[in-house]
Amino acid sequence: MAERIPVAIVNVTSYTGCELARLILQHPGFQLCEVTARSTQGQLLSDVFPHLPTGNLTITEQVKEAQLVFVALPHGAAAEAIPGLLAEGRRVVDLSADFRLRDPQTYARWYKHTHPCPELLEEAVYGLCELHRDELREARLVGNPGCYPTATILALAPVLARGIIKPDIIVDAKSGVSGAGRSLSLTTHFSEADENLAAYGLDGHRHAPEMEQELTQVAKDGAALRFTFIPHLAPMTRGILATCYANLAEPLDTEAVRALYEDFYAGAPFVRLTPRPPETKWTAGSNSCLLYPTVEQRTQRLIVISCIDNLIKGASGQAVQCANILCGLPEETGLTAFGLFP
Amino acid sequence: MAERIPVAIVNVTSYTGCELARLILQHPGFQLCEVTARSTQGQLLSDVFPHLPTGNLTITEQVKEAQLVFVALPHGAAAEAIPGLLAEGRRVVDLSADFRLRDPQTYARWYKHTHPCPELLEEAVYGLCELHRDELREARLVGNPGCYPTATILALAPVLARGIIKPDIIVDAKSGVSGAGRSLSLTTHFSEADENLAAYGLDGHRHAPEMEQELTQVAKDGAALRFTFIPHLAPMTRGILATCYANLAEPLDTEAVRALYEDFYAGAPFVRLTPRPPETKWTAGSNSCLLYPTVEQRTQRLIVISCIDNLIKGASGQAVQCANILCGLPEETGLTAFGLFP
Amino acid sequence: MAERIPVAIVNVTSYTGCELARLILQHPGFQLCEVTARSTQGQLLSDVFPHLPTGNLTITEQVKEAQLVFVALPHGAAAEAIPGLLAEGRRVVDLSADFRLRDPQTYARWYKHTHPCPELLEEAVYGLCELHRDELREARLVGNPGCYPTATILALAPVLARGIIKPDIIVDAKSGVSGAGRSLSLTTHFSEADENLAAYGLDGHRHAPEMEQELTQVAKDGAALRFTFIPHLAPMTRGILATCYANLAEPLDTEAVRALYEDFYAGAPFVRLTPRPPETKWTAGSNSCLLYPTVEQRTQRLIVISCIDNLIKGASGQAVQCANILCGLPEETGLTAFGLFP
Amino acid sequence: MAERIPVAIVNVTSYTGCELARLILQHPGFQLCEVTARSTQGQLLSDVFPHLPTGNLTITEQVKEAQLVFVALPHGAAAEAIPGLLAEGRRVVDLSADFRLRDPQTYARWYKHTHPCPELLEEAVYGLCELHRDELREARLVGNPGCYPTATILALAPVLARGIIKPDIIVDAKSGVSGAGRSLSLTTHFSEADENLAAYGLDGHRHAPEMEQELTQVAKDGAALRFTFIPHLAPMTRGILATCYANLAEPLDTEAVRALYEDFYAGAPFVRLTPRPPETKWTAGSNSCLLYPTVEQRTQRLIVISCIDNLIKGASGQAVQCANILCGLPEETGLTAFGLFP
Repeated sequence: MAERIPVAIVNVTSYTGCELARLILQHPGFQLCEVTARSTQGQLLSDVFPHLPTGNLTITEQVKEAQLVFVALPHGAAAEAIPGLLAEGRRVVDLSADFRLRDPQTYARWYKHTHPCPELLEEAVYGLCELHRDELREARLVGNPGCYPTATILALAPVLARGIIKPDIIVDAKSGVSGAGRSLSLTTHFSEADENLAAYGLDGHRHAPEMEQELTQVAKDGAALRFTFIPHLAPMTRGILATCYANLAEPLDTEAVRALYEDFYAGAPFVRLTPRPPETKWTAGSNSCLLYPTVEQRTQRLIVISCIDNLIKGASGQAVQCANILCGLPEETGLTAFGLFP
Repeated sequence: MAERIPVAIVNVTSYTGCELARLILQHPGFQLCEVTARSTQGQLLSDVFPHLPTGNLTITEQVKEAQLVFVALPHGAAAEAIPGLLAEGRRVVDLSADFRLRDPQTYARWYKHTHPCPELLEEAVYGLCELHRDELREARLVGNPGCYPTATILALAPVLARGIIKPDIIVDAKSGVSGAGRSLSLTTHFSEADENLAAYGLDGHRHAPEMEQELTQVAKDGAALRFTFIPHLAPMTRGILATCYANLAEPLDTEAVRALYEDFYAGAPFVRLTPRPPETKWTAGSNSCLLYPTVEQRTQRLIVISCIDNLIKGASGQAVQCANILCGLPEETGLTAFGLFP
Repeated sequence: MAERIPVAIVNVTSYTGCELARLILQHPGFQLCEVTARSTQGQLLSDVFPHLPTGNLTITEQVKEAQLVFVALPHGAAAEAIPGLLAEGRRVVDLSADFRLRDPQTYARWYKHTHPCPELLEEAVYGLCELHRDELREARLVGNPGCYPTATILALAPVLARGIIKPDIIVDAKSGVSGAGRSLSLTTHFSEADENLAAYGLDGHRHAPEMEQELTQVAKDGAALRFTFIPHLAPMTRGILATCYANLAEPLDTEAVRALYEDFYAGAPFVRLTPRPPETKWTAGSNSCLLYPTVEQRTQRLIVISCIDNLIKGASGQAVQCANILCGLPEETGLTAFGLFP
Repeated sequence: MAERIPVAIVNVTSYTGCELARLILQHPGFQLCEVTARSTQGQLLSDVFPHLPTGNLTITEQVKEAQLVFVALPHGAAAEAIPGLLAEGRRVVDLSADFRLRDPQTYARWYKHTHPCPELLEEAVYGLCELHRDELREARLVGNPGCYPTATILALAPVLARGIIKPDIIVDAKSGVSGAGRSLSLTTHFSEADENLAAYGLDGHRHAPEMEQELTQVAKDGAALRFTFIPHLAPMTRGILATCYANLAEPLDTEAVRALYEDFYAGAPFVRLTPRPPETKWTAGSNSCLLYPTVEQRTQRLIVISCIDNLIKGASGQAVQCANILCGLPEETGLTAFGLFP
C-alpha cells in the first residue's frame, strides 16, 4: 500500500475506542494520527492502556488532521460531535447508536431525547458490510451496528431474504460484560457479575428496533415481524451468542438450510458456517461471525446459533471493515487475526 | 426432633453426592451414617472433601444400616443398585435419570440401553415436590428430577395447568458447569469452559422427554406439546437460568399472570416470585426456585425466567426436600439456608 | 436459648453488611431487629438483596432498639457514629479499620485523617478471637480485624509466639475481589478484573500496620519485625490465600511445626490444619481458617499457607464470632455452616 | 521476505501446539507445511480448532518436509522423537522440558526417568533469547524455557548479573490454568478450578532447577542461591505473575534499580518496564514480558513483579522468537501483536 490514510479515534478511552486503537495500530492501510478523550487529555495512550505500547502517541482534545474519524462516544454525544466533523470534510464511522435508525421518532422513543441532527439520518449507511457493502463504498457517514444486531441480523438475514421462515421470531441472546462498556455500575461490578447469569431488558432493549428495521428491510416480502429479543448477561468479558428461533414456512432439512446460508454469504470473508455448534471462545480476538443453522425435525423449527466477539465483529472490527470499504481497501485488511484460544 | 433417621449416600464423591453430604450433615432430622464410593473406599470423607470436616466418617463399599438411601450414581448404575436396596427394606431417593421416565421405551431411546428394572417405573414417584407432594408421602422410590426439568417445569406448570398458553413452547436454558458433573472431559476442562458460552444438545437433550412427560401431564387438556429445549453451557460453576417462551392463548397482562403464579405456588416454601428478573447468583447455596413471569405486550408472548442452584434445588436440595416429605418432616427441614451472595 | 438478643446492622448494603444479615438471620441467639443504610432507607431488605427473603424487614435510618450493633460503615464514618452508639449503652462490633490500631498516630498516617475519637482506642479490643478471647468477653467495643490480617496473623502467631522464626517475614497474599467492597471502581469493573491478576499496594497497604501491631505483640521477645506484605487481586469473588515466608531460627521439620500449630490452636473451633495445601474454595461460605505450615528442608524456610473466606472469617463471620463471645454464647453459635463446594 | 521457510509442529493438539499454529500461520517468514498429532490424524486442523480456519491443512503422523520443527510433545516423548528429527537434518525448537537442563542427573531426579539422549544436552541452547541470543543463531536444538522460568529469570537476571542482591531469593508465582496443558485432571476441571486459588508444588516444582541453573549462571559471582519457588494456580486461563523478593546487597533506590533494568534490556524488544505494577491481562495475546522492579525502602527489600502470557512469551511466542533468531530473521517477526484488552 502506497500511503497510509490518516485516521482518528474520538473517545479512545472506551472499550470500543481502545479496541479500535489496537486494530488500527496494526492496520497496514491506516495511520492512527490522533486519539481524543475528555478526562485523560495530555496523557500518553500507552499509560492509559499499557497493553498498547504506542510510544509518544498522546491523547488530545480535538481531531485536526484525520480524513477518516472513528467516533466512539456514547449516543447523544456522538450526534453532537459528528456534524462538525463532516462539515470539515472528514468521513465518519460512528460506533454509537445515533445513526443506525432511519426514523428519528423511533430514535427519540428509545433514547429518550430528540435526535440532534435528524437531517443526517437518511444519508447515514447502516454499517453491516454483509448487507450494505455497495452503499458503504461512497458513504460519508456510517452508523456502525450494535453488537446484538450484528449477531442477530447475520443469523437471520438469509432465511428472511429467501422467505423460508414465518415472521415470528425469538432471539435469546447472551453477552459478555464488556458489551456494557467501561462506565461503572453495580451490574458490571465484578463481585455481582461474576458467577452470575441474568436476563435484562425484558421491557424492551434499545437494540431491538435496529434489528427490526434491518430484518424487515431484508425480508422477502417486507412483512411485519413478530419479534421478541431477550438479552442476557453472562460472566465473561467478551463474546455474544445469539440463539434464534423461528418456524419454517415450508418443510426443509438442515442440509438445505446450510446450503442457503453458504450461498448467501459466498462473498463474505468474515461469516463462516461451523460443523458443530459454535462457541464464543472460538471468536475471541477475531472479526469472525460463526453461524450454525439447524432444523429441529420434530418441531420443524429453525434454530440458528450465531457467535461473535462483541468488541470486534460487534463493534470495532466491524467499524474497520466498514472503513476498508469506504477507502477502497480489501475488506479483510487489518482484520485477519485468528481467534485467541484457549 | 426426637431421633434422627439414619441415612446413607451412595457414590458420595460425585458433586450431587458431596452436596447431599453437606446438606444432611447439617440436617436436624437425618443422621448421615454411611457414605459409599467406588475408588475412594477406606478414605475419610474429610480427606476427599476438605470443606466437610466430618471427623472420622469413612467411605465404605456398601450400605448396611440406613433406612433411607440417597443414590448419586450415574444412570444405568443406579438402576442396577436400587432393586437390592429396596429389597432390603430401605427407601430410596435416586438422583440419576433412571426412575424419572414412566415409559421404558422412551428411557431406552434416550439412554441407549434397556432399562434394567422396568417393573419399578410405575411405582417410582417423580420427585418434584411442588407437583407430586402427596404421592411422595408414601413413596418407596423417588426419581429425583433433573436440574433443567426442575427449573423448566416449575416455570411452566402454572400456565399449562390453567390452560392459558398455547402448547408451543421454547425453553432456552443456561447452566453452570457443575451440572455436567465431576467426570473429566474437554468440555468441562477449565481453559475451554472459562470465558466461553455454547449451546449443546441441539439434536436432543436427555432432559427433554422428562420435561415433556411432566408438562403434558400437568397441562389442562393434556394436549401434545410442540416443545423445543436448547441448553447452553455458561462459564460459572453453579446456577441454571431457563428463559421460557410461549404464546398466550388469550390476552392477559403481567399482573394477572403473576397472580396466577402466586396462587399456584401458595403452599410451596421454595418457589418465589421476584420483583425484578432473577439472577442465578441469588440462588447460589439455597434451595430456592426464583420465578419471573412477564407478558410482552407487543407480541402477547409469555416469558418466564426461572433460576435455581442446579446442585441444590436442581439436585441434592430437592432430594432432601423429597426425603423430608417421605419421612413426614416439615418440607423445609434442613433447607432454610439463604443464598450466598456475592 | 431462652431469648434472642436484639441486634442491629449499620450500613447493611455493604458486602460485609449483607453478609452479616445472612449470618444473623440464621443465628439462634440473635434477633436482627434493625438494619440501616443511607441511600436505601424505606426499602425492604429483601428488595435490595433478593437472596435474603426477609419478609418486611425494612431499611431504616437509625438504630433504636438493638443492644448489640454491628457497624459496617467505611473507616472514618464508623468512628463518627460509634461514640453515640456506645453512649446509648449499646455494645459495638466495628468492621471498619477505625478501632484496630492502638496508636492514633499510626492511624492518622495510614488513613490520612486524625482519628475522631482517639480516647476509645485503648478500650477497643482487637477482635481476633483466637488471640483475644478473654478480653472480648467484657468488651464494649470491638475492632474487627481486616481480612488480610486475619489470614496472616493466624498463620504466623504460633511460630512467633514460640520464637522459632527469625523476625524477617514476607507475606504474599491473594484476595478475591469482594474484599474491595461494593463501591464502584475500574479496578473492580468486571471486564478489567476478570481473567486478570495484579499486585497492588506496593508502596504500603493499610492492613500492614495492623498485622505488625498484632504480630509484634504476640512475638515471644517482642522483637521488631522486618515485615513485607504484598497483596494481589485475583479474579474470583471470595477467598484469601496468604503465603507466608520466614526463616527458621533453629532447625525444625514439618512434623514438629505442625504439632506446634495443633497445640496452639487446640481450643479454636475455626482454625484447622489441612493434610494438603488448602484451596480458597474449601472455605467459601464457612468461618474456617485453613492452615498448612511446612518446612522447606533445603532452605530451612518456613512456609505457611492460610485460607479464609474474606467475607466470613475475614469480616462478618468473625464479627459474629466476637459477638458470641461478648454475649457469653458458645463461640461457634450460628457459624457452623460448611463450605459450599464446588 | 523472499521465500517462506517450511516449518512443522509436532503434537499440534496441545495448547502450545495450537498456539504455535496460530502464530506461525500469521508469520510472514514461515510456512506451516505440516502439523502432526497422535489421536487426530487425518482430521482437518480447522475441525479440531475452529478458531483456526486453515482450509485443508490436515493433521498427519510424521514430519516430512519441514526444515524447522517445533516439538510440542510432553517431556520424555520429546526426547524420544528429537534425535530422529535432527538426524534428518532438521533444526528443532523443543517446547518440552527435555533439553532445558544441562545435567542429566538433575533431569532424572525431577522427571523420574533417565534422559533418553543425554549426549544432546550439551549442544542444546536454552531458548531464553534475552540471555542466549548469540548462542541461538547457530543452534540446531533449542530447549525452549518453561513459563515460570521465563517470568522469573527475566525478573531477576539484571540484579543477579550486577550483583546487587544477596543470593537469598523467594519467588511467589501465580499462573493461569492453561499452563497445566490440555490433559484432563480434577485440578483443571472447571468446577474445581473456578473461583479457586491454591498453592501447589510445595515439595518442589520441576521448573525450580531450570531457574536455579540459569540464575546461577547469570549471577555475577556464580554464588549458590538459596532459592524458594512457590507456584499458585489462579482461576483464569492465561497469564503468569511472578512476585520476586530479595534483599539488596547495598542501599539502592527504585530509580537506580529501574535504570539498571532499562540498561540490561536495552536491546530486548519484548521486555518492557511499566510505570505502575503490571497486570497479567495487559500481556494476554502478546509476546511481552512486563517488569516492575521496586525497592521497599523500609526493609531494603527488592520486589520485582513480572507478567507474561504463559502460552506466548512463556511458550509458543518465545519458541517463534527463538526460531526467528535461528533463521536470521528480525527477532520480532510475526510477534508484534498487541495484547487483547479487556
